[in-house]
Amino acid sequence: MSGWNSIPELGALLGEEVRLRGWVDGRRSSGRIGFIQLRESGATVQLVISRKEVDEASWEALQHATQESTVAVTGTASADPRSPGGVEIHVSSLALVHGADGYPITPKEHGTAFLMDHRHLWLRSSRQRAVLRIRSEVCQAIHNFHRERGYYLVDSPILTPAACEGTSTLFETPYFDHGNAYLSQSGQLYLEPAAAALGKVYCFGPTFRAEKSKTRRHLMEFWMVEPEAAFLDFEDFVVYLAERVLEHCADPLRVLERDTSRLEAIRKPFPRLRYAEAIDLLRNQGSEIEFGDDFGAPEETSIAEAFERPVMVTHYPTSLKAFYMEPDPDDPTLALALDVIAPEGYGEIIGGSQRIHDHDLLLSRLKEHDLPIEAFQWYLDIRRYGTFEHSGFGMGVERFVAWMAGVPHLRETIPYPRTMDRIYP
Amino acid sequence: MSGWNSIPELGALLGEEVRLRGWVDGRRSSGRIGFIQLRESGATVQLVISRKEVDEASWEALQHATQESTVAVTGTASADPRSPGGVEIHVSSLALVHGADGYPITPKEHGTAFLMDHRHLWLRSSRQRAVLRIRSEVCQAIHNFHRERGYYLVDSPILTPAACEGTSTLFETPYFDHGNAYLSQSGQLYLEPAAAALGKVYCFGPTFRAEKSKTRRHLMEFWMVEPEAAFLDFEDFVVYLAERVLEHCADPLRVLERDTSRLEAIRKPFPRLRYAEAIDLLRNQGSEIEFGDDFGAPEETSIAEAFERPVMVTHYPTSLKAFYMEPDPDDPTLALALDVIAPEGYGEIIGGSQRIHDHDLLLSRLKEHDLPIEAFQWYLDIRRYGTFEHSGFGMGVERFVAWMAGVPHLRETIPYPRTMDRIYP
Repeated sequence: MSGWNSIPELGALLGEEVRLRGWVDGRRSSGRIGFIQLRESGATVQLVISRKEVDEASWEALQHATQESTVAVTGTASADPRSPGGVEIHVSSLALVHGADGYPITPKEHGTAFLMDHRHLWLRSSRQRAVLRIRSEVCQAIHNFHRERGYYLVDSPILTPAACEGTSTLFETPYFDHGNAYLSQSGQLYLEPAAAALGKVYCFGPTFRAEKSKTRRHLMEFWMVEPEAAFLDFEDFVVYLAERVLEHCADPLRVLERDTSRLEAIRKPFPRLRYAEAIDLLRNQGSEIEFGDDFGAPEETSIAEAFERPVMVTHYPTSLKAFYMEPDPDDPTLALALDVIAPEGYGEIIGGSQRIHDHDLLLSRLKEHDLPIEAFQWYLDIRRYGTFEHSGFGMGVERFVAWMAGVPHLRETIPYPRTMDRIYP
Repeated sequence: MSGWNSIPELGALLGEEVRLRGWVDGRRSSGRIGFIQLRESGATVQLVISRKEVDEASWEALQHATQESTVAVTGTASADPRSPGGVEIHVSSLALVHGADGYPITPKEHGTAFLMDHRHLWLRSSRQRAVLRIRSEVCQAIHNFHRERGYYLVDSPILTPAACEGTSTLFETPYFDHGNAYLSQSGQLYLEPAAAALGKVYCFGPTFRAEKSKTRRHLMEFWMVEPEAAFLDFEDFVVYLAERVLEHCADPLRVLERDTSRLEAIRKPFPRLRYAEAIDLLRNQGSEIEFGDDFGAPEETSIAEAFERPVMVTHYPTSLKAFYMEPDPDDPTLALALDVIAPEGYGEIIGGSQRIHDHDLLLSRLKEHDLPIEAFQWYLDIRRYGTFEHSGFGMGVERFVAWMAGVPHLRETIPYPRTMDRIYP
């Protein structure tokens, strides 16, 4: 064992002597008494250092324990109802492990560019830690949800020989004697063959879009979960994830001052409306959107806020959707697509559809979209050999985390965001 | 609900009428009775079709139910101790959903190139399904292990501005106005700042090496889990994963004819020897290896087979190891590295070390390795502001799965392998 206690276990050690090692998150002192907010294991605890109860070396260490210095401390864990974790430490001995000099992120306000340049340090702030704890929870819940329902995890490749949905927004890299490889925008096409082998499957990994976009809702690199199965339950999935966040992330949600009543309102059934009905709804609200237009951020916000909960929009015009989506048998100009739009302005979080299972229809769609048929022969094979009705969706983790955490910009929802103007650190 | 039963639930439905939809994994018939091995949800069940018990259309469907056709079937689930799942279906009605014509993978032997060209279909074979089920189990167990121990998942970026360990084996891609970005070879450097924020952390994602290597032990794209913490337990991790595979993958291990006694032998403590002792051991076995040489596949096999269980080798010469490894205080020519070598020829599965925490030592190592100091300023920052002793390791998922599954070539342990001469499908 390491011989050190951790902050999360202190509640079980009241009255006992404990040893902690961590970072100085904050410090103040007044003559004969000093306080350190010590950070360790992602949490903080208050250290109380009384001049008359510690030796000279410990008191001296306190003077040098600048922000983000590392310290080692021995003391007694005491109940303190005023502190977030309910515990404070009465210190008997304090030692400086490493004195940090001139930590660049101070309690004053910093600009975004400065914070992004120091992302590797900014991660230490309480807000960023809170968001990343929610992200970690959401990722584990995504795996657990699928495993509990008999899904197999099947990793799709990142290096791919051709574009899933066109080449204009792809990162490319030379690949030995094979020309260029492209970084995957979606694992879906590779998941469908696995569904024929293993039944219910999902992939969960990074995806890439070289989009020349600088909005708060776009990242060049983001993580996406994509399930593929005969039958999907969008609502169960979203409700499950929100419940896990409420259950396990009370502390981060408090730090973020998230209005949890909005998360508690995420209940089945979600309102479901056809694209055409959504257009009507928007026009009745005064929008000049026309049938055939895609929704932008303002339209998505209006639709979901009309119901104050996630909304499912279906039956989009095929012209707005990807080549592989099954047409509506009652009106082939519409696609059997289903998107989930989150409330509070968080926009589309899930995009899904039934997949075309007929070989000839899929082939004609590839041609209409000017996609290279040869590169899709393997994908067509899935319609040659025992084709089957199946559906799938993709959910971007960052958008979901932004919604849960209540942060408006995706750049705070991933440890090291990649935007058009940033690849450092 | 979908209205269809799944094969894994049949054991609870004995004597009842069930409806299944799936693929013809195999078929044989003899005059008045036919048998189909139906595949669904990654499992198979035997359908028994008696001419006198089904209508003419069903009997006709049987004649057209070629390999990998999809069929829909109604019948009664009956106990059958001879079948793997203990169940067979006595069919009352059979319909062809889609007749597959000329499925390219037949029961005869195929060459590797042919199978790799048809990887999207090869996934359907019982052996490939078994390996991928083990992979899915290992991945979930990796997440569960860390979560149960209070680790946070922190995703490292794939697109990075500089090489972690030199540029010769990196995939590169143009990144807007920033020159080239490189595909990550390891998430470790990005994980260390997160450890200062959140304590115990791990990342788990794809990593890339553009190595001109065609051995069975190399892939261009592979998944790696990398934990980073003050204290790591290598043995617990390996034992935990092996136990989960034994517990949850009995069926795939049986299909693969894996000698499970070798997996049951994975018990603590693992033998631990210093690099120098490993050299002595090899020389006593007749090897001409010299102190300072790296281990190749034959040496790794010899070391681990001497103990018939995973072996931990420590204290490698610093010249063999990465720039960031802490030197042994008793002999700075050695690194505080720890590798785990699997038995049965599966080689190194884990590479770990204590990290250098002193700023000036790290800076001098970066210079010795001719790495661009400017690009590593953020990494040096972690030693400027509250540096701390910590360790980490990386484990390649494919090597671990190969060991568990008992398959010699990594190309079967990932759904879509990327090798020097292959990027399709």
